[in-house]
Amino acid sequence: MALAIKLAKQGHYTTSPNPRVGCVIVKSGQIIGQGAHLKAGTPHAEVHALREAGEQARGATAYVTLEPCSHFGRTPPCAQALIDNGLAKVIAANVDPNPQVAGRGLDMLAAAGIETAYGLLANEAEQLNQGFLKLMRTQMPYVRCKLAASLDGQTAMASGESQWITSPEARKDVQRLRAQSCAVLTGADSVLMDGAKMTVRHQELGSLASDYPAEVLRQPVRVVIDGQQRLTPDLPMFESPHPVILLRTKVENEQDWPHFVSQVAIKEHDGKIDLAAALAYLGTLGLNDILLESGQRLAGAFIEQNLVDELILYQAPKLMGVDGKGLCAMPSITKLKQAKALNIRDVTMVGTDLKVTAQFANS
Amino acid sequence: MALAIKLAKQGHYTTSPNPRVGCVIVKSGQIIGQGAHLKAGTPHAEVHALREAGEQARGATAYVTLEPCSHFGRTPPCAQALIDNGLAKVIAANVDPNPQVAGRGLDMLAAAGIETAYGLLANEAEQLNQGFLKLMRTQMPYVRCKLAASLDGQTAMASGESQWITSPEARKDVQRLRAQSCAVLTGADSVLMDGAKMTVRHQELGSLASDYPAEVLRQPVRVVIDGQQRLTPDLPMFESPHPVILLRTKVENEQDWPHFVSQVAIKEHDGKIDLAAALAYLGTLGLNDILLESGQRLAGAFIEQNLVDELILYQAPKLMGVDGKGLCAMPSITKLKQAKALNIRDVTMVGTDLKVTAQFANS
Repeated sequence: MALAIKLAKQGHYTTSPNPRVGCVIVKSGQIIGQGAHLKAGTPHAEVHALREAGEQARGATAYVTLEPCSHFGRTPPCAQALIDNGLAKVIAANVDPNPQVAGRGLDMLAAAGIETAYGLLANEAEQLNQGFLKLMRTQMPYVRCKLAASLDGQTAMASGESQWITSPEARKDVQRLRAQSCAVLTGADSVLMDGAKMTVRHQELGSLASDYPAEVLRQPVRVVIDGQQRLTPDLPMFESPHPVILLRTKVENEQDWPHFVSQVAIKEHDGKIDLAAALAYLGTLGLNDILLESGQRLAGAFIEQNLVDELILYQAPKLMGVDGKGLCAMPSITKLKQAKALNIRDVTMVGTDLKVTAQFANS
Repeated sequence: MALAIKLAKQGHYTTSPNPRVGCVIVKSGQIIGQGAHLKAGTPHAEVHALREAGEQARGATAYVTLEPCSHFGRTPPCAQALIDNGLAKVIAANVDPNPQVAGRGLDMLAAAGIETAYGLLANEAEQLNQGFLKLMRTQMPYVRCKLAASLDGQTAMASGESQWITSPEARKDVQRLRAQSCAVLTGADSVLMDGAKMTVRHQELGSLASDYPAEVLRQPVRVVIDGQQRLTPDLPMFESPHPVILLRTKVENEQDWPHFVSQVAIKEHDGKIDLAAALAYLGTLGLNDILLESGQRLAGAFIEQNLVDELILYQAPKLMGVDGKGLCAMPSITKLKQAKALNIRDVTMVGTDLKVTAQFANS
């Protein structure tokens, strides 16, 4: 199963919105087939592994990180393929919470006389597909909030100067985060004031760039919270012909928008876009894994409303003082016990910076 | 030498203001004597090791983390003891920059026909005695600034509420930092407003408490920057009968101060106590290793003036917003290139908090 999880990671930058899945087929202690799902619409992990195993699959055991699908999507159901190939035993790490599967894959196998089990390395396999699994279970996407600051929590000088606080290595790491995500979410301010394009800059992907040539690399959908309809088609963001979704309070058709830009009206809450409704809408599009990269006000609003699952904080080894901009504005928090609690999952050095990965306690 | 360094660490909480030193004597590949310096006025590491080796020391090799002393202090010179015991070879990690030694210890050995060398594991040995070595080299103490905040750099809510942001484990760790230091330095505000006593609370030392009973534990000298002569003898700090030094712009004798409190007039700079002069004064007292624990203004002033060598930052896994208090006020920093740069040396978890140890690039 550990090998199947390793195989599944091959799809880290490419399977979205599909889950990352790996499969290993074993017979008499020998690996006879292995496979990973690499891209939506292409064969699933089980199919690749079965092809490699060929006739030997008969009587073998399959280890698969996610319950084999039981429905016809863009490819036929894998459970049926495992039955057809005469497997003796199928062990899944996670049950697929997709309402179209949800145990039916394993049921189908059992009904055909195949021995089934699940739960092996379930936590490890869960990490492969946080977005997919959360969306399937709750109809809300998994939101990762990326922030970057000095060690004393400043994101810009009082003058607004902020380029660059973190190291080039940290900024490259952010490109990898973008490349893993279904969508990148930001606010109108970042697009207007910083000229943010929010694309994955292929040349900054480092060693990934050779594994994923520019023409293969999937660009995340760019989503902008633009509650006051301030964005215009002449901004740098719209120079890059990759999908953009503008979340607005009303849809305007006066401007001449490029074809890859869509506008969607989201309901309001206290005169602003209802952020929970915005995320739920993105979920309906299958955008299950969302990277929030925004200024202190929007990031603070998402965090205040407990809509963020994970924090990724880059800290540059600098002290900047107290007069600049802080990380996330949360005006409703006035008592220490209201502070948003996290659990630190991982701390690494990225170049000279610290990268802290933490899970919100509400998540 | 690695063993000698390990032995030297036994003195971590007790040798101040003396250096931590370890010694291992080896003959024919066998360890025949080992020792560490544990407390000022008691025998040096070499003496302990020579006693253990006894007659066997003749013709042996001594590994010592710091050059053996050549002068009569409270104990006779160790270089002479090594000569008297007939050692064949002495290897030191660091040369002692103490102007009373400064190579003379090794010279004395060489003159007596003993083979000498130095530099082995010098960087590791340097870490044992950052305060001692810096003071000897520059006449200024080594200053460690301890700060504690949320992940977003807040040290208190707007209301001032700050108890407790960090975990009990982090607060215990601070007690250990205090116990290692020659002096703890703070500002009048902390003593007046927070009722800080700045003592080592023995019951919070955890496993150290049994190694160092309360009656043995050395309390650091408490130093308060009190430039406006605001402190009075009735404050909680003066309930605890351990030495306090009040650094003031003028010395007043109107108040009835307890015997363990001394007042010292430090020169002014821009109407405030000259912080560099304050540190230089503490250096003249042999206080070589100073823990700065203060609010954002005093900490910021020390850092702004490049007077801090090391930052120890505890970060609680919380987000508090942007309306509270930040870590260090540095009003002179208005451009990003003026930000104070550090090199991160170590990151560990202390309880649920992150502990970041970093060296200032100016240090």
